[in-house]
Amino acid sequence: MFGAIEAGGTKFVCAVGTGPEDIKTTQIPTTTPEETLEIAVGFFHKAKAPIQAIGIGSFGPIDLHLESPAFGTITSTPKPGWRNYNIAGAMAARLGIPVGFDTDVNAAAIGERRWGAAVGMRDFVYLTVGTGIGGGAVVGGNVLHGMVHPEMGHIRIPHDRVRDPFAGICPFHGDCLEGLASGPAIQARWEIVPDNLPEGHEAWALEAHYLALGLVSWICTLSPGRIIMGGGVMQQRHLLPMIRRELLELLNGYIQARDLIDNIDDYVVRPKLGNLSGILGGLVLAEAAATREQASSSNPGVRTSHQEEP
Amino acid sequence: MFGAIEAGGTKFVCAVGTGPEDIKTTQIPTTTPEETLEIAVGFFHKAKAPIQAIGIGSFGPIDLHLESPAFGTITSTPKPGWRNYNIAGAMAARLGIPVGFDTDVNAAAIGERRWGAAVGMRDFVYLTVGTGIGGGAVVGGNVLHGMVHPEMGHIRIPHDRVRDPFAGICPFHGDCLEGLASGPAIQARWEIVPDNLPEGHEAWALEAHYLALGLVSWICTLSPGRIIMGGGVMQQRHLLPMIRRELLELLNGYIQARDLIDNIDDYVVRPKLGNLSGILGGLVLAEAAATREQASSSNPGVRTSHQEEP
Repeated sequence: MFGAIEAGGTKFVCAVGTGPEDIKTTQIPTTTPEETLEIAVGFFHKAKAPIQAIGIGSFGPIDLHLESPAFGTITSTPKPGWRNYNIAGAMAARLGIPVGFDTDVNAAAIGERRWGAAVGMRDFVYLTVGTGIGGGAVVGGNVLHGMVHPEMGHIRIPHDRVRDPFAGICPFHGDCLEGLASGPAIQARWEIVPDNLPEGHEAWALEAHYLALGLVSWICTLSPGRIIMGGGVMQQRHLLPMIRRELLELLNGYIQARDLIDNIDDYVVRPKLGNLSGILGGLVLAEAAATREQASSSNPGVRTSHQEEP
Repeated sequence: MFGAIEAGGTKFVCAVGTGPEDIKTTQIPTTTPEETLEIAVGFFHKAKAPIQAIGIGSFGPIDLHLESPAFGTITSTPKPGWRNYNIAGAMAARLGIPVGFDTDVNAAAIGERRWGAAVGMRDFVYLTVGTGIGGGAVVGGNVLHGMVHPEMGHIRIPHDRVRDPFAGICPFHGDCLEGLASGPAIQARWEIVPDNLPEGHEAWALEAHYLALGLVSWICTLSPGRIIMGGGVMQQRHLLPMIRRELLELLNGYIQARDLIDNIDDYVVRPKLGNLSGILGGLVLAEAAATREQASSSNPGVRTSHQEEP
């Protein structure tokens, strides 16, 4: 039995279980770190069996390098009280069990790889389009971390100000992809919540165009074998086919991969785990942390690599 | 002693040696595959010691997956005679030794990792800006291949047609990054060879802007610890500092990494191996192919992973 936390800026989802068929979740509003974690710890203590480890998929930016002294810390968030807060360290201290830690989108990618739309895949991207835009990537079988971790939503894309005079809402970059195409960006541009925009509204053609431009960048850079698109904005079921069409037009046959050109419906897909990708990925992170702990206690002095994964 | 080929669309560079201090190179114009390879084979036969293996860094697109039946093939190039030509297979047949094979930019990345500007680095990007724009990435210590391989030059970037009405020259995408910022794009826009554009010409500010926009995409997607910029256009020594300044402005402090914010001169750098990155990387590919061959002959039936690298 493992525990998982999907740590978001507005809510924490906590879960105990072993997989999609056996999971119990609860939601906690994100207030102060102390208050939020106290409720989370209470939830884990009430689990019907002892929890071996927990995994946290967190909002960021975070420090996720095992060898870093600040491993487990939410770093430069503007969210009051959370800046430089070591969430993984705090949970480890309170629960006395190993804690796995990664970005929320990497957790979702890991969840989809174990049980969802990327089973057996060595190269793919999980993307969320909602309050923000973020991506997690698996490259050659390993989760991509890099120097910090990806911030895929902040790539720049072509922005035709004649077609779309909206300036974008990213406080850092204005019209980066997230500034143009996140849920709040759609809402700010059209002054209506995205859910209330009718299917035929031009907003969706523009949204599909921007997201497809993002996909082009990630395809040309990571060469993924599949892209999974989740998040609140992607709940608009008509959006995904529009993105696929726009993507093929933009690539214009340049990437000669049958999986992409002949099979776009299997190339850009929805998450198979619905909105549980991230929290289920947390269980996988927990399992990995438990395995790491066992390896290091049976081989003291041997430090396992942060690249090692289940 | 290893052999190496840097296979380009206009010339082949061939080399024998063991590293930067011990390398002998020659150049062959790229004509038909048969003619070009015959001259290359002659060069390798004249080496002063037997060659254990050769490594090829090739123009593309190529099939570089060891487990693929088309491994070693240049796939959809428009170059006459080379389309679907199995260059690695042809060299292996003629020389009777193991052949390593990767993209030209991945080879350059590998060369820089062994002897150049990325020694010891697990996450970095090697970029070339010349006749085309291409990038190779090392992620978590392994060269990124993915479904096909990256085609970094073909990402889309913001293109302000008021500031720059030039339509771009990419036959597939028009104003993708390569279409706007490769050497031939500069030449087509200003109707002068880039080498003859004076240092203060507005062409360079625009070029730095476009390349920095590209760097933003790769940083947000791959989170590399360093970016190495080579290729003919980067021979303009004043360009690199302009790119660094523009990059910091575009990122606007969002990526909170000291290595980037406080140390930009060590973050975006020139290749240490000059224009030998690719051919030296070919020697490393050769060494890896020899090691793979030894492993599979001492463990018959055990197939080594294409992720295994020196």
